[in-house]
Amino acid sequence: MHLFYTPDITLPDYILSEEESKHAIRVLRLQLHDEVILVDGTGGKYTAQITDANPKKTILQITHSQQEFGKRNHYLHIAVAPTKNIERLEWFLEKATELGIDAITPIICDRSERKEVKTERLNKIITSAIKQSIKAYHPLLNEAISFKQFIQQGLEGAGFIAHCMEGEKPLLAQLVKPMGHYTILIGPEGDFTPQELAAAQAAGYTGISLGEARLRTETAALAGCFEINMLNR
Amino acid sequence: MHLFYTPDITLPDYILSEEESKHAIRVLRLQLHDEVILVDGTGGKYTAQITDANPKKTILQITHSQQEFGKRNHYLHIAVAPTKNIERLEWFLEKATELGIDAITPIICDRSERKEVKTERLNKIITSAIKQSIKAYHPLLNEAISFKQFIQQGLEGAGFIAHCMEGEKPLLAQLVKPMGHYTILIGPEGDFTPQELAAAQAAGYTGISLGEARLRTETAALAGCFEINMLNR
Repeated sequence: MHLFYTPDITLPDYILSEEESKHAIRVLRLQLHDEVILVDGTGGKYTAQITDANPKKTILQITHSQQEFGKRNHYLHIAVAPTKNIERLEWFLEKATELGIDAITPIICDRSERKEVKTERLNKIITSAIKQSIKAYHPLLNEAISFKQFIQQGLEGAGFIAHCMEGEKPLLAQLVKPMGHYTILIGPEGDFTPQELAAAQAAGYTGISLGEARLRTETAALAGCFEINMLNR
Repeated sequence: MHLFYTPDITLPDYILSEEESKHAIRVLRLQLHDEVILVDGTGGKYTAQITDANPKKTILQITHSQQEFGKRNHYLHIAVAPTKNIERLEWFLEKATELGIDAITPIICDRSERKEVKTERLNKIITSAIKQSIKAYHPLLNEAISFKQFIQQGLEGAGFIAHCMEGEKPLLAQLVKPMGHYTILIGPEGDFTPQELAAAQAAGYTGISLGEARLRTETAALAGCFEINMLNR
């Protein structure tokens, strides 16, 4: 069944935007009485029936609604340095959305080669991933900010900083208590600087390892996401 | 330090191929006495020094060698239906190589839209990932075969089939014993057929879940890889 993302949902009837109407009727060839699924991005999942298959203004009648669909038992925020090749960050966003994540913040670090991020395009990738994987919650993508600003915002719950510097580092799994609120910092190609690590530690973040393998930025971010989800199953 | 993949390593001197020589001297601008790293794909990692910076025939002298570098404590074989969009499989190969995997076999399933795979290009992606993540073992990429042929090959160690069909399914993590030999089957977009599931079970594979989320083929394959690696840390 086709799924539409409808953050502006109205009940009992909802009118698809002109673009979505065209897509529904001209591309998907949906017809009167066909059923579709709607998700509002804040936990609402709806079944709806087409009551007017107008290609400019398709009208849907909500026949069933469910709140807190797929509600997660924990909160995961990953703050990640945007990759030089933006496609790698896009892959991370798609995969993390499929696996489960609540918030993402691109952080510009001392060694970041990329200093700017267009969040509009990235948000579209997240929306497309929630449609594909039938999620009723839309992960929050924040605007990019500097690493320094990010850690000054204050930390809710447990904070971790994954880095490749020398020294004893526990594995993330050794520190995670289930059903928590977690923030993980993932650095750029070339890692965080020792100054950034020290500043994060002073702000309450604990240095961690994601295993022996040397991982690219987006792989490390996804590994953190996998691990938190797995530890909360 | 730059790393070369040298499956045909010779000691104490090694001559780079014409293509690699050109790359080393013209592109990387390496010079006489510069050090490089070599990995042979079967666990050997070497340090070498340039003794003749010839752009057609660069000669290296091996100064240090190490065997079984980064040897893994388990064996993971993932048999995965190639994705319709081959880039998704390529992404899986890159990420699985970074995280750690021993063998991959593309399997053509009843619902596979893609029936052919060019392994040469895929192998280059794996080679590039081992260079990037400094691995001395090169994962084995087998030629694509049919699902039926694959399960008839016989199963060494524990076999798992990840699927989305109804019924009670344990999580992979509940079944995995550390330091084992594992084979995981991952189906195409649209899942395995009930007949394929039954045939796999008859051949000794256990049906498993990779968690609640509905994952794309390549994400499921990577989730399996991540989970096995995490359980063997």
